[in-house]
Amino acid sequence: MKAWGGRFKGETNPLMERYSASIDFDWALFEYDIEGSKAHAEMLAHIGILDEKERDGIIRALDEIKMEIREGRFEFSASMEDIHMHVEARLIEKTGEAGKKLHTGRSRNDQVSLDMRLFLKHELRLSEMAVEGLLVVLLEKGSKEKGIFMPGYTHMQKAQVVPFSHYLLAYYYMFQRDRERLKGVIRAIDVLPLGSGALAGSTIPLDREFVRQRLGFSRVSENSMDAVADRDFVLDAVFANGMVMTHLSRLSEDLIIFSTEEFGFVSLPDELCTGSSLMPHKKNPDALELTRGKTSRVIGDLMSLFALLKGLPMTYNRDLQEDKEPLFHAVATVKDALAIMTLCIQGMEINGRRMEEAAIKSFMAAVEMAEYLTLKGVPFREAHTITGRMVRACEEKGVPLASIGIEEMKTYSGAFEDDIYDHIEPRRILSNRRTTGAASFAEVEKELDAETAYLHH
Amino acid sequence: MKAWGGRFKGETNPLMERYSASIDFDWALFEYDIEGSKAHAEMLAHIGILDEKERDGIIRALDEIKMEIREGRFEFSASMEDIHMHVEARLIEKTGEAGKKLHTGRSRNDQVSLDMRLFLKHELRLSEMAVEGLLVVLLEKGSKEKGIFMPGYTHMQKAQVVPFSHYLLAYYYMFQRDRERLKGVIRAIDVLPLGSGALAGSTIPLDREFVRQRLGFSRVSENSMDAVADRDFVLDAVFANGMVMTHLSRLSEDLIIFSTEEFGFVSLPDELCTGSSLMPHKKNPDALELTRGKTSRVIGDLMSLFALLKGLPMTYNRDLQEDKEPLFHAVATVKDALAIMTLCIQGMEINGRRMEEAAIKSFMAAVEMAEYLTLKGVPFREAHTITGRMVRACEEKGVPLASIGIEEMKTYSGAFEDDIYDHIEPRRILSNRRTTGAASFAEVEKELDAETAYLHH
Amino acid sequence: MKAWGGRFKGETNPLMERYSASIDFDWALFEYDIEGSKAHAEMLAHIGILDEKERDGIIRALDEIKMEIREGRFEFSASMEDIHMHVEARLIEKTGEAGKKLHTGRSRNDQVSLDMRLFLKHELRLSEMAVEGLLVVLLEKGSKEKGIFMPGYTHMQKAQVVPFSHYLLAYYYMFQRDRERLKGVIRAIDVLPLGSGALAGSTIPLDREFVRQRLGFSRVSENSMDAVADRDFVLDAVFANGMVMTHLSRLSEDLIIFSTEEFGFVSLPDELCTGSSLMPHKKNPDALELTRGKTSRVIGDLMSLFALLKGLPMTYNRDLQEDKEPLFHAVATVKDALAIMTLCIQGMEINGRRMEEAAIKSFMAAVEMAEYLTLKGVPFREAHTITGRMVRACEEKGVPLASIGIEEMKTYSGAFEDDIYDHIEPRRILSNRRTTGAASFAEVEKELDAETAYLHH
Amino acid sequence: MKAWGGRFKGETNPLMERYSASIDFDWALFEYDIEGSKAHAEMLAHIGILDEKERDGIIRALDEIKMEIREGRFEFSASMEDIHMHVEARLIEKTGEAGKKLHTGRSRNDQVSLDMRLFLKHELRLSEMAVEGLLVVLLEKGSKEKGIFMPGYTHMQKAQVVPFSHYLLAYYYMFQRDRERLKGVIRAIDVLPLGSGALAGSTIPLDREFVRQRLGFSRVSENSMDAVADRDFVLDAVFANGMVMTHLSRLSEDLIIFSTEEFGFVSLPDELCTGSSLMPHKKNPDALELTRGKTSRVIGDLMSLFALLKGLPMTYNRDLQEDKEPLFHAVATVKDALAIMTLCIQGMEINGRRMEEAAIKSFMAAVEMAEYLTLKGVPFREAHTITGRMVRACEEKGVPLASIGIEEMKTYSGAFEDDIYDHIEPRRILSNRRTTGAASFAEVEKELDAETAYLHH
Repeated sequence: MKAWGGRFKGETNPLMERYSASIDFDWALFEYDIEGSKAHAEMLAHIGILDEKERDGIIRALDEIKMEIREGRFEFSASMEDIHMHVEARLIEKTGEAGKKLHTGRSRNDQVSLDMRLFLKHELRLSEMAVEGLLVVLLEKGSKEKGIFMPGYTHMQKAQVVPFSHYLLAYYYMFQRDRERLKGVIRAIDVLPLGSGALAGSTIPLDREFVRQRLGFSRVSENSMDAVADRDFVLDAVFANGMVMTHLSRLSEDLIIFSTEEFGFVSLPDELCTGSSLMPHKKNPDALELTRGKTSRVIGDLMSLFALLKGLPMTYNRDLQEDKEPLFHAVATVKDALAIMTLCIQGMEINGRRMEEAAIKSFMAAVEMAEYLTLKGVPFREAHTITGRMVRACEEKGVPLASIGIEEMKTYSGAFEDDIYDHIEPRRILSNRRTTGAASFAEVEKELDAETAYLHH
Repeated sequence: MKAWGGRFKGETNPLMERYSASIDFDWALFEYDIEGSKAHAEMLAHIGILDEKERDGIIRALDEIKMEIREGRFEFSASMEDIHMHVEARLIEKTGEAGKKLHTGRSRNDQVSLDMRLFLKHELRLSEMAVEGLLVVLLEKGSKEKGIFMPGYTHMQKAQVVPFSHYLLAYYYMFQRDRERLKGVIRAIDVLPLGSGALAGSTIPLDREFVRQRLGFSRVSENSMDAVADRDFVLDAVFANGMVMTHLSRLSEDLIIFSTEEFGFVSLPDELCTGSSLMPHKKNPDALELTRGKTSRVIGDLMSLFALLKGLPMTYNRDLQEDKEPLFHAVATVKDALAIMTLCIQGMEINGRRMEEAAIKSFMAAVEMAEYLTLKGVPFREAHTITGRMVRACEEKGVPLASIGIEEMKTYSGAFEDDIYDHIEPRRILSNRRTTGAASFAEVEKELDAETAYLHH
Repeated sequence: MKAWGGRFKGETNPLMERYSASIDFDWALFEYDIEGSKAHAEMLAHIGILDEKERDGIIRALDEIKMEIREGRFEFSASMEDIHMHVEARLIEKTGEAGKKLHTGRSRNDQVSLDMRLFLKHELRLSEMAVEGLLVVLLEKGSKEKGIFMPGYTHMQKAQVVPFSHYLLAYYYMFQRDRERLKGVIRAIDVLPLGSGALAGSTIPLDREFVRQRLGFSRVSENSMDAVADRDFVLDAVFANGMVMTHLSRLSEDLIIFSTEEFGFVSLPDELCTGSSLMPHKKNPDALELTRGKTSRVIGDLMSLFALLKGLPMTYNRDLQEDKEPLFHAVATVKDALAIMTLCIQGMEINGRRMEEAAIKSFMAAVEMAEYLTLKGVPFREAHTITGRMVRACEEKGVPLASIGIEEMKTYSGAFEDDIYDHIEPRRILSNRRTTGAASFAEVEKELDAETAYLHH
Repeated sequence: MKAWGGRFKGETNPLMERYSASIDFDWALFEYDIEGSKAHAEMLAHIGILDEKERDGIIRALDEIKMEIREGRFEFSASMEDIHMHVEARLIEKTGEAGKKLHTGRSRNDQVSLDMRLFLKHELRLSEMAVEGLLVVLLEKGSKEKGIFMPGYTHMQKAQVVPFSHYLLAYYYMFQRDRERLKGVIRAIDVLPLGSGALAGSTIPLDREFVRQRLGFSRVSENSMDAVADRDFVLDAVFANGMVMTHLSRLSEDLIIFSTEEFGFVSLPDELCTGSSLMPHKKNPDALELTRGKTSRVIGDLMSLFALLKGLPMTYNRDLQEDKEPLFHAVATVKDALAIMTLCIQGMEINGRRMEEAAIKSFMAAVEMAEYLTLKGVPFREAHTITGRMVRACEEKGVPLASIGIEEMKTYSGAFEDDIYDHIEPRRILSNRRTTGAASFAEVEKELDAETAYLHH
């Protein structure tokens, strides 16, 4: 069964059936398609196009079809193009004349937009919850390991000592932004397109407000042409997912490096690692590498969608069918990747000793040494130069900054006094930092408290 | 002058100076860099690092530097890397010791994030205003031409008759979403990063709240590592711009097609068209083609940014320098493209006669014919098939639907009566449409009123 | 069964099994995986690792497995990760100890590269043949319709009259470049990676030359680390496919526009069009719109792959697993899209009358008018200006260029003589064009002959 | 001066002049534009359109214009759109009537294609030479350090011991493929488009063969419409550059990691590193990070170009103007990035001691241990499991594999004998590897010899 055909002479080419069929992927929308059809049927009864018996028969049949699909008893066929036609054809089999009335005032153009919006409202809520799950374990891990410090890096070079929890919180705030972004997208999606027909609305007095309330949308679309041409909400969703993935990919990169033998900062959970078919000693951070790789794919999804829409004339064009696979891929990937990272953060072992050794064995305190001089009145630029020379001297001798005696120190700057040694000790640095949001134990404590409260409110 | 050097033995390679210098493009941030430095200087005075005289000298010198750059009297050099170093070096020339204190507690890592946030808050507000400008002319044009109808298209094939203003309003609502998206991005950007230092904050008691108020930010960043590693706001901005461009590109595509000789629906303003160096008769829609092309570039900008960030370890890495050119390009392009489209909508002539002829000479009324049958009780699927057969018959004979006599009509369906001819007349169709947001004169009138009020509130 | 495990304490997490399993898509490589394993087994026998009985048993078992998979009798499971492990596990079930020897000197790292190279050599050859098929129908259509002329467009505006066949040949040459590009990629792929092991080769004296000959490769990879890290051939393949799609998309765009009612140049075959579920009169160019849309997806595939590889450290990283779905998608899509376009070109009806009317009703001859003047000694820039003024005058009056009498013509330029009318007649123009590759009937004839010979050599 | 105007009533809008002007970037084509114009002038004289005096005057004037631009004495203006118009306008200033004849039979459509092809032939040859330069230093470094071994990595985990030179050669072969790819692109570019006019060739008997020889092209384009619509060569070039950048980015990633304090394998040249404005001790691998970042930009360039072309109708559309900036960016970036990497490889210090220690302190010999067992007849899968258990036992005790006494070894497998200790010693492993292209000192020696010969032939 085709949704059309009266005007056509020839048959559809079998290759064309395969090329154009979307049922392989859009079957995933079946619950939403049926939900939408039920609401449409109720509205048609409400305005007198269906009588009560027809309405009830249609709703019962739609519920049966939902169960048939859920239970794998439903037969799909490329010749019936898409999920909408599959459901409608089966409905007509079950209800006859009544079923033939269901498509009144409706087009696949507004129907598919409805299905996708219902789908995305549901799926993005799941993603948002998965982000929340990750936020929780980041806080938990941060609380548990809050006494540990490590080198903070810029350019992959040791930069300044930071609490390990401060590092974790940096990611916490990234994912919090993701959560807000997802919420914003859910709000943007929350518009009922049904009732826009193919592009022009209808001469039949469809009650869109009735359908809106029935399906729980906040608003009704304002322009029928825009409603069927619009895929902004798809791009918004994939962009938001792409941002989540990008953050997961950055965290993955860090953990892959931190779990090398050379760094040795963390040990990833065995349950997320795999071995080698050839090398018996390998334990590879596959889960994280896959996340990094899957991020590329979601970026590619977004590229596909932009290239798809750019330059498309009004209103609906069949190109739009190709929006589904990138969207479905992005939505499914992000949920899995979040769950994997949640397991990873929960399960990874922190090697505090290695982290702290790496922090101690470094010239990172040069910053605080310069700040010490600054607080004693040396202009910062001079303090920076003085300390730079001291680092160079120590590096050449292979000794730490603290090994320079106070007399020698004074040859670099008269401002040095005995309290300098205390001032550049890592834990002391972590107590001395004063600024809001700084890498200090006190700020971390404050943030952990505030965010724990935020997540539980 | 380099910002560093104490620890280095060799000179920087000249090729490396060119390769790594950002001054060619980041000079554009100078106003924001200076604004940020002034606020920082005031804060340093507030906490006692600078005395009042130093502060006032610095502020005066920074204002002078701003004028030097504005007036083209400032000398740039690749060996000084970036705008931050240029300004600071000149400041030290002017103020000596005082100037050397300015970088206290500050790193280029938090400084550049500040500059970009100030820049973007300003620029995106301009973009938002440019969107508003386009919204206004879309409404004006829609109001002016509200009596004209045209074919609405799906798949580039005539689909259903629509008011021309309804078509324009479809774009109106797209750009309204863009406006909301831009506002959301401006809110996300509105966070002060300064005070995060290189990645760890400072042992110097910088007063970030003071700086926040001075610079007019809503919030202070919560985590120093996140603050310097974060480029979410850049991607948010380029994505929002990419969406604007995509909508402009779709509208351009339409107008390019509508202004072909074959369609002849609109005539574009001469001031936006160009001719041919070889073909004397050509009048080409260059402005719109360029918009379509420039859209590709902004999409490429977004892809660059995703590829840049994906898999970057914490925190700041020099890769991030490459965020600027795509961002600057996207921001500049979208403002121009909006201005061009505003001129285009304002200046284009509408050929209502051609539009209406194209609408009349078509089988588009088949939809309303089927709806007529539906309202008379024929199930929609049957009505669709009946009308499809009638279209095919008419097409073979080369005659319009309305040319079928009532007796012949009844052979297709007994439900046809004499009022069918009236029912499928274009203007009647445009009056008969009932649904919210439909392509009807009444809905268009309502929308024009509502949106005019909205834009002027 | 995992390919590893000796060193692991914990179990793999079930989510991780799903997240990391590639069997859902890499099963498609089974024929190549088995072909490679057979060659490897023969080589192991050749160097004495397997005895003849073991070798024969393995080969027999592998052939059985191939049939089991082909016939759908093979059981797949996410817990066994990938196609390599599935085949090997089943082999060990069938052959015991002998099967356990097969993986000698081999890693999944070199094995998967082998499988993909075998797969791509086969698939790209099919793509190349599909391109040839399209080249043939383009020539056939061009030959059949070689007397028809049409407007050639730049900027979607009528530019100069051209033979319709010349237009088709433009696409012919694009696809000919695609064919050459595909051939180049096939050559680049034609390198045996097997024998590179995980990344380092082997202390077992594997005979790579033996395997190369057995599998029909031209060369053996030269460096074991490069061999397992390299995905250049995947990007080469997807890029070449992306170019084919881009050309198909441009041709689709043309045909979508040419088949609008407004242009009316071609009528697409019913077998590639679909109708509307709501609008009984619609005949939509879905096949071509899908091609345009699917092009976006292949571009996205390439983006995914670049983002995947960019910044990946040596050598094999699990990210690389994500190369398969984009590759498989690109390869499958391009074959279908070529077949669809071949059907489309073959089946479409050309409306020569509409094309020629559109060419005649235009100012396109202004170019030849200017060239006429140039041949009479008027500098081209002046000739261009003169003709431009004539076009403007005619346009204002709504008359064609040829309607200007000779006396009036002479007021524009004294160089006009009576033969001008003949010179600007469309068919005469098409005879008068002189340059190699020009839009003239003679050049088209020459090209059709040359290319027909080329395709049949 | 505009190249057109006769038919236009209004003036071009100043914003439109800025929006559409390409002179800001296409001035870079001036040498090629002038070279092309000189050849065109000679041809016009050859066929009698210009007399000898006119020809000589034009050529002299064009040479003068070239010097004016080179020496910065030429005035550019957005109102004259592009480089073609600038040169032609100045030419007419200098030569009067003669100059007005130059554009005979030529359009900016074929002219710009010519300029870009000439430009790219030159630029890609420079890129190819830069690749050669990098190949040379990779070989030199490989020869110099050929006695050093290091851990080879998969998944960033130590995998198997390899000669450091083998690692360098892996990149050598990547860049060698790039060189071949660049050569292929240069061949594809080597086609003369001039003589195709706007899209249709000319009624003036232009001698394209004459121009081809004069400009040194191998072939003449075969179809005038294809010639002006085609940007395949631009995508080919940017793709090839994108591949080079991707390889440079991977190498950068490695070296960034290898130069961390934690790895300590290499020390990058000071001349390519920079410091921190805040942290006196930092030495950052900026050059390599920038290369990684710039790679993202070139990927974005390619995406821009695909999005640009996808769905563009025949033939020339103004969108195509936007091809230049991505192309110019890609071409300039790749040359610099290659030069930077060449300096980096040349100048970096290799810390052989750290590399070898890292290789020794590992379980990497487990592979050769398993191969030992295989050579003694244990099926590989069993050998893998046995060795995996030994690794796990050693890891728990924190001892190396070689610390297990022979008696204890025999409890794992009876096949172990005293020669096992020798067999798993790193340098012995590197001598024992047998396969072509393996990570062995002998293979490296062979490859170094062969490639040195190849580069000098």
